Order: sequence, then C-alpha cells, then structure tokens
Amino acid sequence: MEHLEGRHSILAALKARQRRFDVILIAQGTHEEKLASLLALTASMNVPTRRVDRRELDALAHGSSHGGVIAICSAKPRLNGEQLIELVDALPGPPLLLLLEGVDDARNLGFTLRSADALGVHAVLIKKHLWDFDPVEVARPASGAYERLPLAQIESVEPLQALQRKGLRLIGCIAGARRTMYDVKLTRPTILAIGGEKRGLGGAVRKLCDRFITIPTVGPEASGLSLSHAGAIVMAEAMRQRRAALHAVPPDAAATPQDRLDSTRP
Amino acid sequence: MEHLEGRHSILAALKARQRRFDVILIAQGTHEEKLASLLALTASMNVPTRRVDRRELDALAHGSSHGGVIAICSAKPRLNGEQLIELVDALPGPPLLLLLEGVDDARNLGFTLRSADALGVHAVLIKKHLWDFDPVEVARPASGAYERLPLAQIESVEPLQALQRKGLRLIGCIAGARRTMYDVKLTRPTILAIGGEKRGLGGAVRKLCDRFITIPTVGPEASGLSLSHAGAIVMAEAMRQRRAALHAVPPDAAATPQDRLDSTRP
Repeated sequence: MEHLEGRHSILAALKARQRRFDVILIAQGTHEEKLASLLALTASMNVPTRRVDRRELDALAHGSSHGGVIAICSAKPRLNGEQLIELVDALPGPPLLLLLEGVDDARNLGFTLRSADALGVHAVLIKKHLWDFDPVEVARPASGAYERLPLAQIESVEPLQALQRKGLRLIGCIAGARRTMYDVKLTRPTILAIGGEKRGLGGAVRKLCDRFITIPTVGPEASGLSLSHAGAIVMAEAMRQRRAALHAVPPDAAATPQDRLDSTRP
Repeated sequence: MEHLEGRHSILAALKARQRRFDVILIAQGTHEEKLASLLALTASMNVPTRRVDRRELDALAHGSSHGGVIAICSAKPRLNGEQLIELVDALPGPPLLLLLEGVDDARNLGFTLRSADALGVHAVLIKKHLWDFDPVEVARPASGAYERLPLAQIESVEPLQALQRKGLRLIGCIAGARRTMYDVKLTRPTILAIGGEKRGLGGAVRKLCDRFITIPTVGPEASGLSLSHAGAIVMAEAMRQRRAALHAVPPDAAATPQDRLDSTRP
C-alpha cells in the first residue's frame, strides 16, 4: 500500500481510477468547504473516509503539504510490455510515447510527466530503477499527471522492439545530432527517447534508434537544456507538427470557423 | 559582497567577466587536477586565491556542493532601463527579451535562465522582488547561464514602454489566449512576457501587451505546464521561427552546404 498526500493529488487519483483506495484519512478540524468535491467523489465511488487526529496524520505524512488529507491506496499501476501494446492498439491516432532514461531526481521526473500529459503523450516508458523514487516526490510536481498518464515499466529493449515491429519509430534526442527536431516527421507513430543530462541515452537504446534529433541551441558557451526542459520542447514540437497536419485542409475543402481562427496571423 | 560556490559556477562567472573578484578560497586537500582550468584562469585574470581549512569553507557555504571552492566577489550586476536600451541598440539582429513575473522559487528561475541562455534570449527582465532569492540557489540550476545572461531589474512599466517605442512588441503568454504562439511572428523585435502559475501576468503588464499567445495543450483535464517549461517552449518557438527566417533562401540564391544539411528530410 502507498499513501497520497493532499487534496489535489487525491482528487486526481480518484478521477484517474487507476488505484484501489482503502481509506481516506481526514484530520479533524479541516475546513469542510475545501473538502466538498473530494467527499462527493469518495461517496460516489464508495471509498471510505475516516476522521483522525491531526497528529496521527502528521506522523504518517512525508511532507507538510498534506493539508489534512491522506489516502491509503494501491500503488499506481505499471503497464508491462503486453499492456503497452494493447494501449497503443486502442489509440485512434498515431501514437506518441516518451521513453525516459537516466532521470536524476524525482522532481524532474514529475515535471516531465506534467509536460507529457499537457502535450498529448499517450504513455511514458520508464526504466525499472526510476521506480525507486518516492512516488510522493514524483506526484507533487506532476500536478495530477502522475495519476492520469499511463506509465510502463521497461526492463529490457524487447518492448521497444515490439513497438518498432508495430510501426513506431524510435527517435533518440541527443546533443549534436545532424538532424534537428524540425527535420524529422514526428506526425508518424513515434517513441521519443530522452536521456539524462550526465550520460545521455544508453547504448542499448541508441542501437535501436531509427533517427537521432537535436534541439537547436545557440553558442558554444550554452550550457544546454535540462532533461525536463529538453523533453518539454521536443514534445511541444511533436504536438506542433501533429496540429499542423490536422489543420492542413486541402484547398478545395470548406474551411471551418476553427480553421480560420487558427490561421489568423497578425 | 556575495559568494559563489563550486568550480563550475566560479568558472562561468570568471569567463562572463561581469563580477569583480576579491579572492577565491580553496580548501586544503582539494584535488589539484580538478582545479587546473580554474587556476589558469585566475592567474591570467590576476584574481588572488587562498588555501583555507575545509572547516572554514564549510562554515561559509550555503550548501554542501561547493566541492572545496568558494569565490568572494561582487554581486551579479543588474542592468537599469537605460543600460537595457543600450544593450538592445547594440544587437546585430532583432532583439528577443524575456520578462518574468511571479516566479515562485529560485530553482524555477534558475532553470528558466538556463533555457533562455540556450535558446538565444538576449536579456531577461526581472521584477525587483525576484532579486530577493538567494543567488546561490538561482545560479545552481542555471548552470552558468546566471553569469552569462544580461539581467535587468524592472521596477515599473516605464522600461517596457521605452522598449515598445523602439519597436519591440510585448507578447503576453497567457492560458486561453485566442492566438497560439504559432500564429504570431516572433521573428520581429520581441519581449516575451511570462507570468507565474498562480496569478499569471499582472494587470500593469497585460495592459501594455501588443499580443497575447497561448501554448496549445490537450484535454480539459490537463494540468498545464509549469512556468519554466512553458517558458522553454515559447522561447524554442521563437528560435524555430528565427531559424526558419534565416534559412529561407530565395529560390535563385546558391544553396550553401549548411543550407543543404539543414533541409535534409527523412
């Protein structure tokens, strides 16, 4: 069993319906009006709640940001290779997956999940050792994305090869690649692979990559981008290309009001 | 006087030549081979170094990441409105400035400076209260960018108006704007204004904005992007547009090998 701390994390987890909830502990004296949406949801989902002494809650908590609410629940499920393929098969459009290697702290992982969720990534593939991070520390900066985003645990390159056999291209983001992210079609079924700042992508993943891309930066002195910021920029570029492909209406098609709005230029 | 901790920060500050250095303190027993480039630079710049007891250094340090080296030096200089105009006037191409409001912690500010440095921003405009952050906490995630990037302290909207009179457009990045960042020409002289996650851009800056733009994200459930990640994405888009404008060679012009390389598509 794990626990989740704070109203926002717990609401996100309840809505995502990926965990099984044992009980939600609420400190006596917590403002009732702040709990209304939480209590409505727990009632509709038959999740029990219990009022406890605030000191009992403080003793359970990792941090001080629980705001009087802690949930005892099953861990966030991790998809295995087979479940990942099922997820990809069920997607209506071209899959966009993110593979992370060598993330060096829980906070950076959390922020990257948040960006992935906002930028239309369908699932994040994470090496086994990254699951050793404290889930509370990952979930806090992820701001609900940790609960919503499907996460797959990757223990070998086999699931990557299986995805490649299904037509997904593995695109490695590395410093100094000859092609920029603007030179490669990210509208096709894609796995974006991003490595940590210290060592970049590992050899086993590099060997499998169908393409390498880089984010153009300026000057020899530039210290480069952090993993989570590089990730956000590449995912946004994939989204830009996908939006552009969607909005590329053939000349004879009638433009919808939405198309006209999106093509407005100053 | 301030102090800088760690070899990397100090090297970046020496190279940026924006601070005046009193002395660099080095703990006795620090590996000499790690100090070679630092000592070569201090010798060439006539900056004195002094060997001290490690406990003395530890007592001075904020954190534990100084690695045996602390510099005592003047604070990072802050440009005033007049100096900012001088900097803009001296730029060879269209200026790209970043205005930050409501950044909530030193680490997010540091990461944003790092991205700005890598993505070709010429100066960052920061409201006065943000200077209250511990400079060591800002400089660490900025990875040298804090030293290199010109930073201007903005105490009123007057410097923004002065920049607008010089032809710079103030582009406010806000959630829900009708135009996306793809709909606005960021190749023109531009100030990108980004607000904090809690309150967004303040009223005084909003009133001055020439355009508002948003980053497209998906789904009503999306928790949005953090300030530093939204900033990185918008700055990267400005860079994409500027690169595309540079590489848009007229059809009759002879393509250089660099142009051919950049237009390679899979």
